[in-house]
Amino acid sequence: MQLLSQQITPEVFADHESEVRSYCRNWPTVFSRAKGAWLTDVDGKRYLDFFAGAGALNYGHNNTALKGPLMEYLAQDGITHSLDMYTEAKGEFLSAFNELILAPRGLDYKVQFPGPTGTNAVESALKLARKVTGRESIISFTNAFHGMTLGSLSVTGNSMKRAGAGIPLVHATPMPFDNYFDGVVEDFNWFERVLDDSGSGLNRPAAVIVETVQGEGGVNVARAEWLRALAELCRRRDILLIVDDVQMGCGRTGTFFSFEEAGIVPDIVTLSKSIGGYGMPLALTLIRPDLDVWGPGEHNGTFRGNNPAFITGAAALREYWADDALSRDVIAKGDRIATAFTALCEKHEGLSHRGRGMVRGLVFDDAPAAAKVCAIAFDSGLLVETSGPADEVVKLLPPLTINADDLEVGLAVLAQAVEEVLA
Amino acid sequence: MQLLSQQITPEVFADHESEVRSYCRNWPTVFSRAKGAWLTDVDGKRYLDFFAGAGALNYGHNNTALKGPLMEYLAQDGITHSLDMYTEAKGEFLSAFNELILAPRGLDYKVQFPGPTGTNAVESALKLARKVTGRESIISFTNAFHGMTLGSLSVTGNSMKRAGAGIPLVHATPMPFDNYFDGVVEDFNWFERVLDDSGSGLNRPAAVIVETVQGEGGVNVARAEWLRALAELCRRRDILLIVDDVQMGCGRTGTFFSFEEAGIVPDIVTLSKSIGGYGMPLALTLIRPDLDVWGPGEHNGTFRGNNPAFITGAAALREYWADDALSRDVIAKGDRIATAFTALCEKHEGLSHRGRGMVRGLVFDDAPAAAKVCAIAFDSGLLVETSGPADEVVKLLPPLTINADDLEVGLAVLAQAVEEVLA
Amino acid sequence: MQLLSQQITPEVFADHESEVRSYCRNWPTVFSRAKGAWLTDVDGKRYLDFFAGAGALNYGHNNTALKGPLMEYLAQDGITHSLDMYTEAKGEFLSAFNELILAPRGLDYKVQFPGPTGTNAVESALKLARKVTGRESIISFTNAFHGMTLGSLSVTGNSMKRAGAGIPLVHATPMPFDNYFDGVVEDFNWFERVLDDSGSGLNRPAAVIVETVQGEGGVNVARAEWLRALAELCRRRDILLIVDDVQMGCGRTGTFFSFEEAGIVPDIVTLSKSIGGYGMPLALTLIRPDLDVWGPGEHNGTFRGNNPAFITGAAALREYWADDALSRDVIAKGDRIATAFTALCEKHEGLSHRGRGMVRGLVFDDAPAAAKVCAIAFDSGLLVETSGPADEVVKLLPPLTINADDLEVGLAVLAQAVEEVLA
Amino acid sequence: MQLLSQQITPEVFADHESEVRSYCRNWPTVFSRAKGAWLTDVDGKRYLDFFAGAGALNYGHNNTALKGPLMEYLAQDGITHSLDMYTEAKGEFLSAFNELILAPRGLDYKVQFPGPTGTNAVESALKLARKVTGRESIISFTNAFHGMTLGSLSVTGNSMKRAGAGIPLVHATPMPFDNYFDGVVEDFNWFERVLDDSGSGLNRPAAVIVETVQGEGGVNVARAEWLRALAELCRRRDILLIVDDVQMGCGRTGTFFSFEEAGIVPDIVTLSKSIGGYGMPLALTLIRPDLDVWGPGEHNGTFRGNNPAFITGAAALREYWADDALSRDVIAKGDRIATAFTALCEKHEGLSHRGRGMVRGLVFDDAPAAAKVCAIAFDSGLLVETSGPADEVVKLLPPLTINADDLEVGLAVLAQAVEEVLA
Repeated sequence: MQLLSQQITPEVFADHESEVRSYCRNWPTVFSRAKGAWLTDVDGKRYLDFFAGAGALNYGHNNTALKGPLMEYLAQDGITHSLDMYTEAKGEFLSAFNELILAPRGLDYKVQFPGPTGTNAVESALKLARKVTGRESIISFTNAFHGMTLGSLSVTGNSMKRAGAGIPLVHATPMPFDNYFDGVVEDFNWFERVLDDSGSGLNRPAAVIVETVQGEGGVNVARAEWLRALAELCRRRDILLIVDDVQMGCGRTGTFFSFEEAGIVPDIVTLSKSIGGYGMPLALTLIRPDLDVWGPGEHNGTFRGNNPAFITGAAALREYWADDALSRDVIAKGDRIATAFTALCEKHEGLSHRGRGMVRGLVFDDAPAAAKVCAIAFDSGLLVETSGPADEVVKLLPPLTINADDLEVGLAVLAQAVEEVLA
Repeated sequence: MQLLSQQITPEVFADHESEVRSYCRNWPTVFSRAKGAWLTDVDGKRYLDFFAGAGALNYGHNNTALKGPLMEYLAQDGITHSLDMYTEAKGEFLSAFNELILAPRGLDYKVQFPGPTGTNAVESALKLARKVTGRESIISFTNAFHGMTLGSLSVTGNSMKRAGAGIPLVHATPMPFDNYFDGVVEDFNWFERVLDDSGSGLNRPAAVIVETVQGEGGVNVARAEWLRALAELCRRRDILLIVDDVQMGCGRTGTFFSFEEAGIVPDIVTLSKSIGGYGMPLALTLIRPDLDVWGPGEHNGTFRGNNPAFITGAAALREYWADDALSRDVIAKGDRIATAFTALCEKHEGLSHRGRGMVRGLVFDDAPAAAKVCAIAFDSGLLVETSGPADEVVKLLPPLTINADDLEVGLAVLAQAVEEVLA
Repeated sequence: MQLLSQQITPEVFADHESEVRSYCRNWPTVFSRAKGAWLTDVDGKRYLDFFAGAGALNYGHNNTALKGPLMEYLAQDGITHSLDMYTEAKGEFLSAFNELILAPRGLDYKVQFPGPTGTNAVESALKLARKVTGRESIISFTNAFHGMTLGSLSVTGNSMKRAGAGIPLVHATPMPFDNYFDGVVEDFNWFERVLDDSGSGLNRPAAVIVETVQGEGGVNVARAEWLRALAELCRRRDILLIVDDVQMGCGRTGTFFSFEEAGIVPDIVTLSKSIGGYGMPLALTLIRPDLDVWGPGEHNGTFRGNNPAFITGAAALREYWADDALSRDVIAKGDRIATAFTALCEKHEGLSHRGRGMVRGLVFDDAPAAAKVCAIAFDSGLLVETSGPADEVVKLLPPLTINADDLEVGLAVLAQAVEEVLA
Repeated sequence: MQLLSQQITPEVFADHESEVRSYCRNWPTVFSRAKGAWLTDVDGKRYLDFFAGAGALNYGHNNTALKGPLMEYLAQDGITHSLDMYTEAKGEFLSAFNELILAPRGLDYKVQFPGPTGTNAVESALKLARKVTGRESIISFTNAFHGMTLGSLSVTGNSMKRAGAGIPLVHATPMPFDNYFDGVVEDFNWFERVLDDSGSGLNRPAAVIVETVQGEGGVNVARAEWLRALAELCRRRDILLIVDDVQMGCGRTGTFFSFEEAGIVPDIVTLSKSIGGYGMPLALTLIRPDLDVWGPGEHNGTFRGNNPAFITGAAALREYWADDALSRDVIAKGDRIATAFTALCEKHEGLSHRGRGMVRGLVFDDAPAAAKVCAIAFDSGLLVETSGPADEVVKLLPPLTINADDLEVGLAVLAQAVEEVLA
């Protein structure tokens, strides 16, 4: 069944790879091939993927509509690596992004290629916000996740990951995300009060960075009205609003950008994960034109010109975003998941669910149950992971392109796993 | 001549891309295809590449020996994106890296995939060094370049890039790189003195991070004895030694690791750029086994499992590092460049050169002359860039695999450009 | 009328003193002598002092009971300056402090002399808390005031004073002081939630620093139950509790320590201002014995042995704290002020009051009115100042030893001034 | 013999004072009275003081010329505590300081009273330099000592004291003090090089802070030409020069300001210790007029108006600085000490000496010998302390007013102690 001539076993990783490896510990098999929503391991066992590269595979594995242009481009020796030189592939991507995404939404962002990962995009966004405003402080939110490099880690909530920094993380202050107090406390009570109060001790912030739905944080969904109030608060206070759409962008919540539903226009947007379409590294920082005060080369990076990803990224835009079919489909499948989860929650005590579009979370009052459910699901051929500060949430991130039957298969496996754990 | 159906012109970039773009400003054409040491633009004009993706294309563009396995892997729907799951491609890469690189050199590093860019590797190295030692401070060197995210930027020298941070960069103290005082001052005079002196005010460092040859900093070459003295000083003081081999590793100086010549064994090594072989994003952090104290997932990243790069990376190792042919060839071609440069310097006043292996710098006493040489070279079909704090160095980073004739072509163009500028 | 032979006019200050001077701008006369609650200027005009050195003159100016021992000590050439050598005067102070203050209250603090000002005490408290816990972060409260040196300023709220630092102030996070939301939000809602939540992004704090009544912050009074809940929260979480009693200690609220009423025992207490009795610089840091992990000389300071202040400080303790007469008197006079303020508030719209013991605030809805009241009071021979983030509070800090008649005089002047401003 | 009725023994300190106490550990007796250069303990034993309050008692203990005005001022109920109100005493001090110190030297500094200790002055100087320049970084020197609050500690070299901070000390970079390399390396080689080099990684500094003679650091004397070169370098680079004259000012080196000999004019000067004359807390920050950009109250402090110290400070200026008698005397007595030390050094191996005016150091190659000498001296009735990073220097700071006979007595005791230790 294996793809390569050499037999690869888990031992090679145990022997040579750092202890930092993590997903492989819960999914201890060697994967070989993948197509759409399915992976196959070296023993030929198939796994349905409800994790989708943590949101990097919105269009599924090795999507045929993207694979063709990619293979053709590589075959013809199109430029692979270009730093920030002009290339056809990059121009094609920029054109498609403008034509299919920005222009139809009335957006005129300048596009920065800050390096090919989400944390590169977040770092560049924070740097630019600080440069523009001349202020240092950033407001982040409880249970936010923005990345592992030092700037991004400073605005990330998870204490284990923060401890990895080895230095005190400063210049960021957490504020309560929407519904942090279960609806008891008015939304921006604390944040507005300390901004209003010149004696509050809060350093005046350069920017607020927010996810519309916190994926790593436990599928915490900000309401549209909360996002609008946040945007309005930032506008009134001359604080820049950065939406980190790395995980929730590219259609995960239905619309291309996750903030469209709220009708807000962030000052800076970060995109990565599925923007390259095929799971290859790519990231964008979108900048309100008047904020584009970068000097040439003031932020750079070796792999900011990853042309194969431009090709597949552009192909994905043309395939999926020329009309609203995918969007509608995401909403519909999201609703289907929600319906299934509602049924599960009605059947079992200590279970609730939340989500938007095709990011959905099953929340276990008994946190360890979530990991048990994932383990049983894995044994049954379903890849699904936990999130949340206590790993109490089973997070669903299926490919947006998953077909209805596969979705039902996965939901059934999940229901069975929940049954086993909670019964 | 163009590859894609759509006509791409520089305007699309001017209209939509951020002002941060830089290389394209000196090379204002749209590139289309590439092979080996040559790029072709949309108008069919060919350019000889003496920059090689800033060291990311040591094996040339779209190297045929790597392209085959890549195309085959993609064609068979091998896993593209895997986070840190076990995959065949990753196992194959780890095996090849251990078998061909680590084991023959008597090295037993644990391998971390910290995210696919050099700065991810540097950030993880700094985090780990701080975690291991419980200290915060890092020693960097004058004119160092380690990356653009906040941790890496703190140990980078360039003041323009540092200013982009928008916050004071702290926890790092620069020390003089080898020969910073033109040989007048003894090597570690200052560094050792402040370490010795409990009243010096220097925070005790967790680690020293060093490039053996500073590429961005102006092709500053540390002597083997200086590196040995540095390693010995770190060992005696219980300070970790991090060699950032992102640009100088993968054979650029002749040996696979640039520090081999000095006979030192760093505690942590960062690799990126050419480690993926084909110009696709990949980075490694190599860790002395007893320092591998990461908790699972304590550092992570979406694109740390970029499988196409594992395939081309492994193919490159098997193609070029099974014997010492490439190494010898690099030394020989490096010598050839040095000879040519010596001739140039003898001919022209105000010109000197330096370098190791196939990283070579022509240093102009009159700094602006360097950029003029590069501009003329571009017009003559040669891509070559400046480096150094005053952009006073024309830096040569040709593909290691360039053939002798092409090398001569490029050197001739360069000689002619120098002639035009300095005459 | 003047004391010295040389005629001093305000011009000498305008000519030679820095623009940083402030109180003198509102009180533009040259003061000469003082006794009890009264000051006399060079023209012989008398001023009743309702400010009392911002709480440094709880026993009034040049208190006769302290002046005798001071004059005698100086006359006999008792040691004036001693660093931290043993001296009779210091021993006498320590004995008196233990005998009259600590022992009767069942407290066994170790006493540090951290330098003679409140900010020295706060800095030493923060340093020790960080050393003991190995954590960096401190929780402070909105509108806190702890001092002007860098460590103390980091935990101070006032934005104008913070801006004076010239560097970003970090390692401190503000939390809402009692009643920050006018009773709408539950007390430790936010603070407990972010401590509980491992994903909140709050760095785990070494200590909480709190004033029981915020003097500079606008006479904000923490309720005893709030302080108890805070102490309990700190205890449960292994966070040190520092009470900054620099302004509210030494009987200002009635009891010697302002936290006695709440029945809590802080881990560290700072004292200064009136601890020297006679208005001479002295400060103490009181340390739970098991936390006294200082190395010899790890914190020092030239003026930590200000022996004249030991003499007057000890004399004040023996004069005023051998029984509870002063305490009862402070409560009674505080009640008298409250009664007068209640009457004022009933008479005028937009006026409220708050306070404890003999720190009392008249709060003006129309903030600028407060300064007008103080200006009129000054013209009428009463010294009283504003506080609060908008300077909206007229803050009363009369000497605790003021007699009933003088208190009435001052209250009448104040009532008249309010009348003029609000009528 | 004792002064007070209560018998004070060392036990009271052991029982109640923090472990941070230090000088008392080497001088374990209880001191009672003092006059001029002599202290008397409770048992009547007399000690000659060659430490003089670490430089705070330049005019000796309880100097009669200052005591008279002080006693008279206190007797007449002159204002004791005044914050920054105008008082006669403060005006008198400002007048005297301007008339006797500033004007004759052609200096027009604005005077800030930043709080009564040296570290208050240093903190205000650093804050102002940062505010003026908009930069954060400060250059300090190896083995500098500037104080124990967080800002001052950041520019202090001693590693034990730095560790007490409990947080990483940042925003300061140490440079080599004069003669740090025993004359081998050119003076500002490293500092100038990194300032020149835009790629050096040194944050551009707001200010340099320097002591002309490092007292705590081991009596390290900067040469006049080094100070001039430093001042010139700062001027050329638009970096502010702060001279911390807390220990070396007020005549310790002969001239009133220690920098007069070099002919430089710092932008900011800090004074404390002996400026109050009588050992009572006082400190000044002297500011070049155009740099006096403080807002009113932007830096404040409760004890910045310590009027008894204004009285004794002014009296000291009028007594000692109306002519150059004291200056000449200091030079002469300093020469006498140097002569005695030269003789000692000629007699003993492993001994050298250095100093200026009446700050003198005996440097022991065998560091522990210095403490032994001090211990023997104490037993013989001489107070003298060590300094330097290894406590290898016996530091002499006798009162400037010591008479020639007493000086000989002390030198003889010292010579005998050296004899005992080194013989």
